[in-house]
Amino acid sequence: MDHNIPDIVIGRLPLYLRELRRMEDDPARITTSSHELAERLGISSAQIRKDLSHFGEFGKQGTGYHVHYLIERLTEILHLTHEWPVALVGAGFLGHALASYRGFQRRGFAITCVFDNDPATVGKTIGELVVRDIEEIAAILRDSGIRIAVLAVPAEAAQATTDHLVAAGIRAILSYAPVSLTVPPGVQVSYSDPVVQLQQMTYYLALASDGE
Amino acid sequence: MDHNIPDIVIGRLPLYLRELRRMEDDPARITTSSHELAERLGISSAQIRKDLSHFGEFGKQGTGYHVHYLIERLTEILHLTHEWPVALVGAGFLGHALASYRGFQRRGFAITCVFDNDPATVGKTIGELVVRDIEEIAAILRDSGIRIAVLAVPAEAAQATTDHLVAAGIRAILSYAPVSLTVPPGVQVSYSDPVVQLQQMTYYLALASDGE
Repeated sequence: MDHNIPDIVIGRLPLYLRELRRMEDDPARITTSSHELAERLGISSAQIRKDLSHFGEFGKQGTGYHVHYLIERLTEILHLTHEWPVALVGAGFLGHALASYRGFQRRGFAITCVFDNDPATVGKTIGELVVRDIEEIAAILRDSGIRIAVLAVPAEAAQATTDHLVAAGIRAILSYAPVSLTVPPGVQVSYSDPVVQLQQMTYYLALASDGE
Repeated sequence: MDHNIPDIVIGRLPLYLRELRRMEDDPARITTSSHELAERLGISSAQIRKDLSHFGEFGKQGTGYHVHYLIERLTEILHLTHEWPVALVGAGFLGHALASYRGFQRRGFAITCVFDNDPATVGKTIGELVVRDIEEIAAILRDSGIRIAVLAVPAEAAQATTDHLVAAGIRAILSYAPVSLTVPPGVQVSYSDPVVQLQQMTYYLALASDGE
């Protein structure tokens, strides 16, 4: 397998997997094609074929891709064959939304611990999880084997919390805090900031208006 | 101004703006450099200079960028000089998190209406907004001039809701539903799916383990 696959290709694989899983919900469904995936995802069929070809020969001329087989292969490629435990930091509205999101478990992840710094929240439960004191992060995570954290804390607290997480062995952080984080080499950070996404769209909204 | 700027360049401008705004919080701050921005953002200084050069000559050899001036220019380029009203659809935990997020207003957006389909939620307030019945979306949005919506509904409801939004004049959607949406030409969709982001990171986590 080619180990120098562009990040942008890796970034599209979860989208293929998500759409294939939706197809699989239909018990009558056996195969799909790059054209059908293209139509559903808004990505060109040539791009989809090229992306998948990095990992081998999955499709057959004329019959297309076998949905279940392609799901299995993508699950292996993305290392989702076992469930990844995830630490959630921040138990406000966003933390609650994430903790109660049912989409994690079915797709390879389980939030197994939740932390907050608010004494009024620590000790309460979200679903089946008791909110732990953020002061305990290092002690709890260090020997847990957990390597993934979701950060749902305010911007001001994000970098200090990140430093604790990294010290406790976390190697991948999905951050909802609207701030760029500094992490050592070998630690990945992925960001989710609604305003950054909206601001990108306003550029194009205004362009379209100019053309009206 | 060059109107054929790559999407990926436009996508980085909000990150520059966000970091510059943080710098501006320090009243002693006057200038910055592509090197300082690079260090804070984890983007190369050459890339930053190249991105900004699409829009004109902002920096001076030796003195760098004037923070306030660059903020003003980026605010103009991204069309954030006036505030954009935003419709929020879905008033669950995620909807609450979004409605109570203070980061919108300071950065060019204001959620001005909230919709939900749950009779137990309709009529209640989130902050200063009364949750309206989703059945009223078309009537309320049609003459409102609102062109941006944030979608925080379950996957099953996302496409039908999107169709209503588009029919009511929405031209940009930020969707938190874990599903690809079909929209007509001229409508933009941006997605936020934590699992897609996590699945990308597990690929690299596993690569790193293979190399250990």
